[in-house]
Amino acid sequence: MAEPMNGAESLVRTLIAGGVNVCFTNPGTSEMHFVAALDKVPGMRCVLGLFEGVVTGAADGYYRMLGKPASTLLHLGPGLANGLANLHNAKKANSGIVNIVGEHATYHIAHDAPLTSDIEGVARPMSHWVKTSPNSTTIAADGALAIEAARAAPGQIATLILPADTAWGPAHGVAETRSPSALPKVSADAVKAAAAMLRSGEKATLLMGGTCLRHRALELAGRIAAKTGCGILTEGANTRLERGAGRVQVDRIPYVVDQALKVLQAAGNLVLVGSREPVAFFAYPDKPSLLMAKGAKSTKLAGLDEDMEAALEALAIELGAINTPPARIAAPRRPALPKGPITPAAIASILGAKLPENAIVVDESVTTGREFFPETAGAPPHDWINNRGGSIGYAMPVAVGAAIACPDRKVVALIGDGSAMYTVQALWTMARERQDITILIFANGTYNILRGELTNVGVRNPGPRAVDMLSIGRPDLDWVSMAKGMGVAASRADTCEQLAKALDAGLASGGPNLIQVTV
Amino acid sequence: MAEPMNGAESLVRTLIAGGVNVCFTNPGTSEMHFVAALDKVPGMRCVLGLFEGVVTGAADGYYRMLGKPASTLLHLGPGLANGLANLHNAKKANSGIVNIVGEHATYHIAHDAPLTSDIEGVARPMSHWVKTSPNSTTIAADGALAIEAARAAPGQIATLILPADTAWGPAHGVAETRSPSALPKVSADAVKAAAAMLRSGEKATLLMGGTCLRHRALELAGRIAAKTGCGILTEGANTRLERGAGRVQVDRIPYVVDQALKVLQAAGNLVLVGSREPVAFFAYPDKPSLLMAKGAKSTKLAGLDEDMEAALEALAIELGAINTPPARIAAPRRPALPKGPITPAAIASILGAKLPENAIVVDESVTTGREFFPETAGAPPHDWINNRGGSIGYAMPVAVGAAIACPDRKVVALIGDGSAMYTVQALWTMARERQDITILIFANGTYNILRGELTNVGVRNPGPRAVDMLSIGRPDLDWVSMAKGMGVAASRADTCEQLAKALDAGLASGGPNLIQVTV
Repeated sequence: MAEPMNGAESLVRTLIAGGVNVCFTNPGTSEMHFVAALDKVPGMRCVLGLFEGVVTGAADGYYRMLGKPASTLLHLGPGLANGLANLHNAKKANSGIVNIVGEHATYHIAHDAPLTSDIEGVARPMSHWVKTSPNSTTIAADGALAIEAARAAPGQIATLILPADTAWGPAHGVAETRSPSALPKVSADAVKAAAAMLRSGEKATLLMGGTCLRHRALELAGRIAAKTGCGILTEGANTRLERGAGRVQVDRIPYVVDQALKVLQAAGNLVLVGSREPVAFFAYPDKPSLLMAKGAKSTKLAGLDEDMEAALEALAIELGAINTPPARIAAPRRPALPKGPITPAAIASILGAKLPENAIVVDESVTTGREFFPETAGAPPHDWINNRGGSIGYAMPVAVGAAIACPDRKVVALIGDGSAMYTVQALWTMARERQDITILIFANGTYNILRGELTNVGVRNPGPRAVDMLSIGRPDLDWVSMAKGMGVAASRADTCEQLAKALDAGLASGGPNLIQVTV
Repeated sequence: MAEPMNGAESLVRTLIAGGVNVCFTNPGTSEMHFVAALDKVPGMRCVLGLFEGVVTGAADGYYRMLGKPASTLLHLGPGLANGLANLHNAKKANSGIVNIVGEHATYHIAHDAPLTSDIEGVARPMSHWVKTSPNSTTIAADGALAIEAARAAPGQIATLILPADTAWGPAHGVAETRSPSALPKVSADAVKAAAAMLRSGEKATLLMGGTCLRHRALELAGRIAAKTGCGILTEGANTRLERGAGRVQVDRIPYVVDQALKVLQAAGNLVLVGSREPVAFFAYPDKPSLLMAKGAKSTKLAGLDEDMEAALEALAIELGAINTPPARIAAPRRPALPKGPITPAAIASILGAKLPENAIVVDESVTTGREFFPETAGAPPHDWINNRGGSIGYAMPVAVGAAIACPDRKVVALIGDGSAMYTVQALWTMARERQDITILIFANGTYNILRGELTNVGVRNPGPRAVDMLSIGRPDLDWVSMAKGMGVAASRADTCEQLAKALDAGLASGGPNLIQVTV
């Protein structure tokens, strides 16, 4: 007679039946039945991370590429806590994720064992949906609810807590997940209001976000821009922007408040498509939080939970622009390779010259990368991913998940040295999974952004102790050794010539390859 | 005219006036005024970590050595989240900590900028006390309240949230912190009940925890044991145990449930001194959560928030044991150095042979370290620190904090390779602060504890995918390279002879030194 199915197995089968067939894991004792079920049930790809921030960030990257949730497997409250920062980033990016978090057996919780904590409390700030599944006969249905929650437009963080006895007790079987309903269409009034704003004669700009940053929706925006003369902008950070030669070129709102104010002054009124009225990343004394031009108005064409592409199409039709050739199509252009010392501008040119077709760029370059857009605009078509949540340490994990989602594409991760340290363990998973990821670490030996911020918040002439708290160059981080320690090939580039050569070698290697870029 | 004091400066001055003069930091933009104030105000030692788990774990280690809180400086919700796992461990160890967590300017929060999150929600599960200080004139008083909360016996996690405008606005000055009141004495009835249990003729054991694991309190326990024949035990994990030659020798309750049941069967009735009735670390099918022998009783002599040493003294007087020479005094003994392949037993002997006088041992050796106690019992007096919260990745950060607290003592950290990866960034802080820490990484290439746990929870013959999720040996972690990458000298020991030599060299170096121990 076959062994009866336990709760863990019914959950694994429910996940797979619901289309969740990747699990990024960092398990512990309370998750052992789930781990054991992975052997029994075919169809779940498991990817191990040595720190939970790698696991949750990978699930974020996976969703951004495929638009469907992966699962994570985390060990009780502290394991979830270690994954929270990248769940925060994923939440702000509207990436759907099903977190499975182990918990003590229900009867054991009251005894306050060492690892006991308020797991629901830990989950709630970074989750849209949280549930503790009370027993082994409910876990399949709760798993289906978690998948539905994760898939709910525009993507949600669902955290399902799995007590050990829920995992090991007898189950009834698999639960079915309802398919997500189609995104609602926007109202005719929303289209009319947007058209009216664009026809008014006042300066106006389409501010685009979310999944309408894909080729087809951007093309519609380009047609509208060609017809009406409006601008096209995106928010400061995008979940995934399709760009490169032949695609409609858009700029991001700059991070620095004074620059953002100038850009939005020029933008005028805003038609919001999957975006919000822009706000400053941080508040600063005597600077505004809201960045729209004084007197400018906004109108919402479509939100993230509506069919944005259909809305843009309706707007193009309304404006008679549906057959207008799109404005701002980026011409193919490979910049000349610079020589000599490495500067941010030189890195931009080298990236523009070398970025392979269909590359996925995961950008956490912070200060170094502020100039990367213009020089890469004419490179072959590629995707550009930014951090929407602002918690640093997102890029290497997101690159891991993007590479799992798209094993046939090359991933290029651009990361400041300070940021990369938070989730440095991701390198090991890249080596284990032999992922085609080239990582550029911009080694300036400092939390460089904070030097500027110290001035921005009004601190004049910071003293040695303040500066010391922003310096990560004592001792210098040797990224080549760290990468080697985790099984990733690595080299160091001190000149443009070396960087171009190392980038060629990294991209050609087909595996993970780290380049420490001295800037 | 002098610049008026801002909120950040009033907080820094209040912390220093309240005896909090160390700050473990990982700051961001919203904390820049606090960082700037550090230059203006003398007396705060700042120690930078490149990941927040290092910062919070260091504060835990600092408290364990000095019994007074350090502060941490963390960047908004995600920065706090990254520190939660080690705050969980610190909370379970009753380590007092004052967390300062930056927040957006109060008026900026409503705009839901990228880094906006429910910081109080993130803090609550791992904090005893949480407050957002509403403005720059209240922050000094709130800082004093946070210090008082952190100091409240037996030590608490206090999280003070500092909005940017609270930091940069004008302040009134410094607030005074009330001194902690003396710990209350236990009742005469508690002493009488304990005495009655020890005199009853039934088997009985003192189960000791918290700060009564120090030499003088243990000596009192030894006198009581000599007089009554009772046993002495500690819980499975101790915040800090003073042990070694000339001190009263005690054993810990084993982690493995079947072994723990045997030990507690032999222990009989329990007199609880700073401890609770023992519970299993995890629940397992068909094994009990509560570990006391069937039919055994317990009586509480003193809790963690009472004067435990005075209670033991009163009990010794009550029993006529106050002048009885203590039982179980460990004789000085240095084991012979083993040769050949490295085994857990061989490591124990080498540690026993080499541990320097007054060393601080931070033990996260997990499976490898289960046999370390007997062979090190006769080494010169030293302190032994365990993880009370069970969230792995605690030892290197705690070692950082212990070394800041006790710069004249040698710290020895004993860590499994899986555990060490979670907070590997601690190595950089050790190098930066030139700390006298010798780190032994037990490299078995696996989450070895989980292999046993897979069997313990009832999984027979785990398949290749389950085993793969517990294996961290593909690729092998090269700790020598990782340490080098963060500026820490390192070597590898594959034999007992190499380990003994490397340990000598590491201890003699006076700086951080890592040894990858092949087990």
